[in-house]
Amino acid sequence: MPRYKLTIEYDGTGLVGWQRQDCGLSVQCLLEAATRRLSGDDVSLAAAGRTDAGVHATGQVVHVDLARDFRPDQVRAGVNFWLRAENAPVVVLAAEAVGDDFHARFSAIGRRYLYRMIDRASPPILDRHRVLWVRRHLDVTAMHQAAQILIGRHDFSTFRAAACQSASPVKTLDRLDVSRVGDEVQIVAWARSFLHHQVRNMVGTLRLVGEGKWSDADVASALAACDRRKGGPTAAAQGLYLTAVIYPPDDADSL
Amino acid sequence: MPRYKLTIEYDGTGLVGWQRQDCGLSVQCLLEAATRRLSGDDVSLAAAGRTDAGVHATGQVVHVDLARDFRPDQVRAGVNFWLRAENAPVVVLAAEAVGDDFHARFSAIGRRYLYRMIDRASPPILDRHRVLWVRRHLDVTAMHQAAQILIGRHDFSTFRAAACQSASPVKTLDRLDVSRVGDEVQIVAWARSFLHHQVRNMVGTLRLVGEGKWSDADVASALAACDRRKGGPTAAAQGLYLTAVIYPPDDADSL
Repeated sequence: MPRYKLTIEYDGTGLVGWQRQDCGLSVQCLLEAATRRLSGDDVSLAAAGRTDAGVHATGQVVHVDLARDFRPDQVRAGVNFWLRAENAPVVVLAAEAVGDDFHARFSAIGRRYLYRMIDRASPPILDRHRVLWVRRHLDVTAMHQAAQILIGRHDFSTFRAAACQSASPVKTLDRLDVSRVGDEVQIVAWARSFLHHQVRNMVGTLRLVGEGKWSDADVASALAACDRRKGGPTAAAQGLYLTAVIYPPDDADSL
Repeated sequence: MPRYKLTIEYDGTGLVGWQRQDCGLSVQCLLEAATRRLSGDDVSLAAAGRTDAGVHATGQVVHVDLARDFRPDQVRAGVNFWLRAENAPVVVLAAEAVGDDFHARFSAIGRRYLYRMIDRASPPILDRHRVLWVRRHLDVTAMHQAAQILIGRHDFSTFRAAACQSASPVKTLDRLDVSRVGDEVQIVAWARSFLHHQVRNMVGTLRLVGEGKWSDADVASALAACDRRKGGPTAAAQGLYLTAVIYPPDDADSL
């Protein structure tokens, strides 16, 4: 069966997240339904990142095996046709044929997330389901400096959700950059993989630094504690975006 | 009665536009209702730009007279409290006390609009009510060059809606800049004032240039024709934002 890699965008507002649930609309079930209507058989999709309820994506990657050959642009256009027919808040940005050894989750060597906050007196309207609203002015320089404490290979238990299924709490964080664009504060996180809620828990901690409540030393001792109760609160899902998934160049060559 | 200048943001999706209508929610009625709940008396608001149905604003300006003195931050917070109570897609970004001679519409000496398009194969999802989707790749350099033909003082009848109530079709266009940010094409228009639908009609014309259907000469002869039937189609409301209204510095000094 030919395998396709799909890069997708979705609006997580009102969805239960990537993964199919007993109750509520998931990205997986919307995308599987549209793919099934294109190819006519049962399909099952695997995603690089199993994003939580309310989390958005501009560069999620999934793979799917179809019963017959389609041109990649037919897959993109066909799946998008059925997604639009259902008014699903999901779209396929790109489709490409890949080898059987490509797996959206297990072949990935990097994941990138963006977290958006707006710090101003008035709540956001145009971006109201797209950003976290913070009333206090955030010190972005202090946040970026504190973020650098988290870079590298660490036991990230302090930033790990209780429900996390990862075998180990040890991960390597490659980048955690905090910058300002007008009244928006953007936090970008790069790693091979993340623990469940790790980005949102790191963001909630950096917010405390930005509000002047925590120092660098507080962040360092929270990390060293390896205890979720020592970390900052979990930042709301609505500010989080999975923006890119990175694969080794070999995957492209092996077609 | 003390007069206040309010700078407001709104999501025009599903609204009938700025102005109160017989049927449907307008920005004016939402904002008047919230202001009335704050001040307890009948209020009436005047806006710098009477935006159409579906058009957004990040910097609309209105003025209102209240029966008693409030601190400007009380006006902002109080009106926002009542807007949120009604889940209105409108927010006050800033409030300031102004003199009786300040009029949101008649004191304005400049208005700035932004038009956003996304040109890619797949429809937008996260920005689906925020941008115009164009399937074809747009030549931004050609669009910007053609836009410069429209700069200056002209009879803009070619870009004027039939319903326009302006006394004269002659306006001075100060800037019309087209630029690309990733797969988004942004058009920025600056003038003292615009005819009804002028920005959307200019954008619809520049789109024809971007798609390679029209040349600079076509734009020049359309402008010279002073005939709406010679211009490009009206671009959809959902891509348009009123971003700023400019007042003379004197207004600030006269407080």
